[in-house]
Amino acid sequence: MIINRNEMKREDKEKMRGGEGVTSFTYLADCEKEKNIRLLAEITLPPGSSIGHHRHDSETEYYIILSGSGSVNDDGVDKPIKAGDLVITGNGASHSIVNTGNVPLVFHAVIVTY
Amino acid sequence: MIINRNEMKREDKEKMRGGEGVTSFTYLADCEKEKNIRLLAEITLPPGSSIGHHRHDSETEYYIILSGSGSVNDDGVDKPIKAGDLVITGNGASHSIVNTGNVPLVFHAVIVTY
Repeated sequence: MIINRNEMKREDKEKMRGGEGVTSFTYLADCEKEKNIRLLAEITLPPGSSIGHHRHDSETEYYIILSGSGSVNDDGVDKPIKAGDLVITGNGASHSIVNTGNVPLVFHAVIVTY
Repeated sequence: MIINRNEMKREDKEKMRGGEGVTSFTYLADCEKEKNIRLLAEITLPPGSSIGHHRHDSETEYYIILSGSGSVNDDGVDKPIKAGDLVITGNGASHSIVNTGNVPLVFHAVIVTY
């Protein structure tokens, strides 16, 4: 099955997980129809926007950074991230992400469940 | 955990799955350490290169097209793909992909197992 970009559902969320500003989602797939995956999305955080700290149990989230730069709190430790990097958060670990740069921070988010 | 781009393993495969030319992999994660996911990679096909037709059982592969354009044989039907599109292949379906354009075709490949 092929899903064209213009068929994908988009959604903006304010102050996601207690973060700042707007988080824009483009849902690449309707994961209710898929197995062992509950999110496959392109996410955009404008400069200064963030997704607040949250935990992943019985699942792992992968952030694949596409463009821009920012900072991830990786289970308690702040680390810089930039295009090309991967963030892995699962098995009870927590993370948050903030765009600390001057251009949009864009990444793919994949949540695999188990 | 954060994996920086320069830590990621790269590999070139010739005539992958019976296709043409070179398929270049950047492995974003070592999936042997992950659950319910056996591939998380950025793949590049130069113009004219392809991955031959193959089937996915007990797993689903997602191609998230990042740049370039090409054609996917989606379980027997040829369809054009371009940046922003998603290809979903699982539950015994088959696919192949060829770069029919003049620039590299780059995509994320995610294989979720079940």
